[in-house]
Amino acid sequence: MKGLAMLKIGEIGWIEKDKPKCGPSDAIIKPLAIAPCTSDVHTVWEGAIGQRHNMILGHEAVGIVNEVGREVKDFKPGDRVIVPAITPDWGSEAAQRGFPSHSGGALGGWKFSNFKDGVFGEYFHVNLADSNLALLPDKIPLEAAVMLPDMLSTGFMGAENAKIEIGFSVAVLGIGPVGLSSIAGAKLKGAGRIFGVGTRPKLIKIAKKYGATDIINYKKGNTSEQIMDATEGEGVDAVIVAGGGPDILIDALNIAKPGAKISNINYFGRGIGEGDIIPISRSGWGFGMAQKDIVTGLCPGGRLRMERLAQIVIHGRMDPSLMASHVFKGFDHLEKALLLMKDKPQDLIKPVVLLDG
Amino acid sequence: MKGLAMLKIGEIGWIEKDKPKCGPSDAIIKPLAIAPCTSDVHTVWEGAIGQRHNMILGHEAVGIVNEVGREVKDFKPGDRVIVPAITPDWGSEAAQRGFPSHSGGALGGWKFSNFKDGVFGEYFHVNLADSNLALLPDKIPLEAAVMLPDMLSTGFMGAENAKIEIGFSVAVLGIGPVGLSSIAGAKLKGAGRIFGVGTRPKLIKIAKKYGATDIINYKKGNTSEQIMDATEGEGVDAVIVAGGGPDILIDALNIAKPGAKISNINYFGRGIGEGDIIPISRSGWGFGMAQKDIVTGLCPGGRLRMERLAQIVIHGRMDPSLMASHVFKGFDHLEKALLLMKDKPQDLIKPVVLLDG
Amino acid sequence: MKGLAMLKIGEIGWIEKDKPKCGPSDAIIKPLAIAPCTSDVHTVWEGAIGQRHNMILGHEAVGIVNEVGREVKDFKPGDRVIVPAITPDWGSEAAQRGFPSHSGGALGGWKFSNFKDGVFGEYFHVNLADSNLALLPDKIPLEAAVMLPDMLSTGFMGAENAKIEIGFSVAVLGIGPVGLSSIAGAKLKGAGRIFGVGTRPKLIKIAKKYGATDIINYKKGNTSEQIMDATEGEGVDAVIVAGGGPDILIDALNIAKPGAKISNINYFGRGIGEGDIIPISRSGWGFGMAQKDIVTGLCPGGRLRMERLAQIVIHGRMDPSLMASHVFKGFDHLEKALLLMKDKPQDLIKPVVLLDG
Amino acid sequence: MKGLAMLKIGEIGWIEKDKPKCGPSDAIIKPLAIAPCTSDVHTVWEGAIGQRHNMILGHEAVGIVNEVGREVKDFKPGDRVIVPAITPDWGSEAAQRGFPSHSGGALGGWKFSNFKDGVFGEYFHVNLADSNLALLPDKIPLEAAVMLPDMLSTGFMGAENAKIEIGFSVAVLGIGPVGLSSIAGAKLKGAGRIFGVGTRPKLIKIAKKYGATDIINYKKGNTSEQIMDATEGEGVDAVIVAGGGPDILIDALNIAKPGAKISNINYFGRGIGEGDIIPISRSGWGFGMAQKDIVTGLCPGGRLRMERLAQIVIHGRMDPSLMASHVFKGFDHLEKALLLMKDKPQDLIKPVVLLDG
Repeated sequence: MKGLAMLKIGEIGWIEKDKPKCGPSDAIIKPLAIAPCTSDVHTVWEGAIGQRHNMILGHEAVGIVNEVGREVKDFKPGDRVIVPAITPDWGSEAAQRGFPSHSGGALGGWKFSNFKDGVFGEYFHVNLADSNLALLPDKIPLEAAVMLPDMLSTGFMGAENAKIEIGFSVAVLGIGPVGLSSIAGAKLKGAGRIFGVGTRPKLIKIAKKYGATDIINYKKGNTSEQIMDATEGEGVDAVIVAGGGPDILIDALNIAKPGAKISNINYFGRGIGEGDIIPISRSGWGFGMAQKDIVTGLCPGGRLRMERLAQIVIHGRMDPSLMASHVFKGFDHLEKALLLMKDKPQDLIKPVVLLDG
Repeated sequence: MKGLAMLKIGEIGWIEKDKPKCGPSDAIIKPLAIAPCTSDVHTVWEGAIGQRHNMILGHEAVGIVNEVGREVKDFKPGDRVIVPAITPDWGSEAAQRGFPSHSGGALGGWKFSNFKDGVFGEYFHVNLADSNLALLPDKIPLEAAVMLPDMLSTGFMGAENAKIEIGFSVAVLGIGPVGLSSIAGAKLKGAGRIFGVGTRPKLIKIAKKYGATDIINYKKGNTSEQIMDATEGEGVDAVIVAGGGPDILIDALNIAKPGAKISNINYFGRGIGEGDIIPISRSGWGFGMAQKDIVTGLCPGGRLRMERLAQIVIHGRMDPSLMASHVFKGFDHLEKALLLMKDKPQDLIKPVVLLDG
Repeated sequence: MKGLAMLKIGEIGWIEKDKPKCGPSDAIIKPLAIAPCTSDVHTVWEGAIGQRHNMILGHEAVGIVNEVGREVKDFKPGDRVIVPAITPDWGSEAAQRGFPSHSGGALGGWKFSNFKDGVFGEYFHVNLADSNLALLPDKIPLEAAVMLPDMLSTGFMGAENAKIEIGFSVAVLGIGPVGLSSIAGAKLKGAGRIFGVGTRPKLIKIAKKYGATDIINYKKGNTSEQIMDATEGEGVDAVIVAGGGPDILIDALNIAKPGAKISNINYFGRGIGEGDIIPISRSGWGFGMAQKDIVTGLCPGGRLRMERLAQIVIHGRMDPSLMASHVFKGFDHLEKALLLMKDKPQDLIKPVVLLDG
Repeated sequence: MKGLAMLKIGEIGWIEKDKPKCGPSDAIIKPLAIAPCTSDVHTVWEGAIGQRHNMILGHEAVGIVNEVGREVKDFKPGDRVIVPAITPDWGSEAAQRGFPSHSGGALGGWKFSNFKDGVFGEYFHVNLADSNLALLPDKIPLEAAVMLPDMLSTGFMGAENAKIEIGFSVAVLGIGPVGLSSIAGAKLKGAGRIFGVGTRPKLIKIAKKYGATDIINYKKGNTSEQIMDATEGEGVDAVIVAGGGPDILIDALNIAKPGAKISNINYFGRGIGEGDIIPISRSGWGFGMAQKDIVTGLCPGGRLRMERLAQIVIHGRMDPSLMASHVFKGFDHLEKALLLMKDKPQDLIKPVVLLDG
């Protein structure tokens, strides 16, 4: 089978590999819709997770079950499924502790295009199929469904970790697709006023549809000053960091009320000065005492999460298809879609590639 | 001044009293909009909190500040304010423990028409004005604003205590005004599928607008059986009890998944057989081990709560004015409004009386 | 192999069965120490979970690994292990929701002597060995270790669910072995004053060693009145229900401050009047509004829980061997041990049977 | 009256001031025992909170009530009281949000020797006496009691914020008096293995008495490497940062398991390179995704907190008097005691000055 792979840091290309083998609890999936992610860009062009050779990329997919292991009970070939970006080992120590995304070590639940081939192949492998796949309801179009595995799961997590209470004011720093999902997530968790920080008109339009009440243009002045002005010096009840440079936590701390969470969903691809340091401001952090907790997480995965996200879409609580800004048909367009994610043109939110099952 | 009072159990009437006195931290308010509550009905006609003589009724109001004590900093005569039904003593032991509604003893934060005269007078008294009043934003019409002090605060609490996560299925037993607010609250906290249990067409219409996806008519069959059928025997992720007879917890337990919260906002005016017993079913409760926690609370009060609820309305997250089914103008209509609440005609949701400030 | 079984409701006896078969992820264990539980008594003589025929009893054991399936990585024949009473399916929907003890349905993680043969046989079967077994540290004597699978796990859960904060006052209703473990658990979670309610001198002595500061003798007066007197009418910050009749929640509610949790670990073998009703008092519960939440759970199981409990014992935080009041050697004494649990003589806490590996 | 004051940054001295005035809800206290704190050292010699002139120092005291305002109900002249270091405005917005220590702004509940004169005078002023004072039980000696206002409250908070579950492994970085209190707090919250990081023999002895099971000497090798070795590469379940330089969070992140909290109680008096930056390591933090939350707080204050801490001491859960390493009698010794805190000799834990009431 063929797949679009990272050949080495800085280089991608189509390769041929054997179709993956299916263990007793596993499934082999044929993708129906796939989407490149900024993480793929970090992985290939920034070497963010280190060197990889001939590893098929991609971790956002919905597909059709091609094969299942003999112990799989709930799925059979032909089923259309949502595949989470994160596929935990549910019996692991980390999962028993309540942190399945880190089964087997930090970020260990992230297997696709990290520890094994990703979803940008003709077929791909899923561990613990009964626990990690979810049936794709017919009502959800493919270009909406493919937002669930990572964009919605990560974006909503940003809002969940922010511990939003009804009527909170929330600032979302960054309105790329996970930032947009965080705005939707903040609304879903009961936020009142929601600041979205960004500049691109197409994204701003979706941000407002998803619940942003105020847009802050960081090109028109200092972000934290603008938000402090807009809140009469009070700051906000919660901050979601969904983008920004390596020093973005400083802005985040400056606009957080004491007691507010700084919920990070940013993947820090690099530190300040290209080093390994992410800075906190001592004063903005109240010298370590202002109760501005900095909380994080990795995209929640697994079957139940996907089923719950599907419920959100089915019942019209949020429409993820608005983020599918560029929809292609056919595997041949995948490389172009990935490069779009790298180059981020003004009107890009998220490219999607639809495939024949 | 005059006020509509409980003369004794079973009897109401207009009385004359002195205008209340304003302590150093207090405020005297002249009502602009008031609403009778089912609790007033419990108090007068069921004697639910015991005997009271010539106590002015009512705890739902927005008004205009008439007088403030010398230590009040944030409010002045002429300010339009939202007055929470519950006005805690914020320095009390219970408040320091995190339970301000119970300051001074169980339900002790509930002062209006319980320990002191309520809001159905020409003037009424508010303790700790700076901590218990909230400015009424101009954008919010009076008939919407008067839903905040109790209906929204209590209804939303039902959803908050249910610990709803994104995509949860939720059943709301009862779709009177607090049940409707709980449906809206469940949506605000991220519920997917929401069952509303009720029969009256006008309320069903609002239930759907507020987020109910399925309506269960308890006259067409056993409530719990209908919900279990609809969920293929799984039950729901959370149950909010917003109405029902003294044995309603049995239904609630039967439809709750293990791990689901039973969030009660029902005021149990009486027990089974008119006694003091509220029954739990041993089997439905997993013999005490099924992790179906029964959680409760009293309407959250205070300034911050009202400010946050106002944010919800201002930013269009929910429109409480839909519940103001019967709007009257002038104090003279108050008695009729209260009797409507007692008699509950088919098309009643909530009566409101608007007053000249 | 032989095993001590429930022949039918009301009758026990030794039976012969085939040695259980080991699936690919499973283990077969030979017990080293086993203990009868009050639940076994409920099961056999009260028929609490319904009819069973020739089902080997018991769910409290430590043992030696006899056989493992080919996918088991962390255990091998000869390893000494702690076996939790509850052995969840970790990939199940309930486990993903955070409630592994209810995998496959309410109480579904409880398999031994419920859905399959228990640990009172020469060999017994454990599902998902890597996720459900824990190595038994050499430092922990067998009669201490056998308290971990259920007594400590359940008793500590009672304290955990009570959400004890540093300096809380706590009442533990019942000082049998799970009640004693709850007292120890309350101390472990930071309680200050701890009331233990019981009468038997041997248990009172252990209760004090485990952290009880006040003993309430329910034969010397009404329990709730005694505790209200001792707290000058304030009540306690948390209540753990670890025993009592079907109406025990009424006492529990009466002594709970508003905001206090009623944490139930009692297995309600029967309701009032032998029916299915467990009563709550309407007034004690503040008419459903006093924020006295009634919370429950089933013994937490799995590997991590057992490992953590072992850490408590290893580091001397609590000594469970004090509860092993009657220690026997040899399988032949098992029936006597079980009958002791049924008859509960004055000096009984917990009988243990030690076996040759 | 006289008091020991900060004259300006870098300089202390005795000054004369008028006895403070007592407002209607306030109290004037005459100290019985006072203790200097490292924060006083930060304030004077590092200028950590900026310039102050002739401000009386000190925020750790127990004393005797000298005068109360007319609205104070629960205290009267002659009462012996514990005075929390932090005395919140309980009706404030921050307190209603659940963060009383930050009433009126970040760290705003910290008034003594910050916004007003501290406790190192012959008399000092306490706001909201009924909500901020606690009766000092006779059983607690003064040198133990004076540890409650800050040392125990802050140290225990370190353990509370770490969300310790029964059997957790915990590392406490720093074993000065707040670090020691965190060790005791970790034990109180159910920790199993507890690492204490420090070198001074006298402190190590107390660390072990308070519950440390392993001592790590940072002079004998890299702290994080030693802890990773001791845990076989797993790291710990929670980290409490109770000391260290401006880059201490890097060590903390390196030893934290994914999912572990980094609970900071360190007062960062300066950043790296004397600047305003506190660094996080990008890799140790899992690029912002390893779910290693960095959580903080300011010493909890108020009456209830002090009452609860007193319960811990009364019931023998922990003995704070072990930390009173240098006890002086008479106001004249206060300057020496403060300089001890500045110079930190080998055998110093905490100096205490006892006074005639």
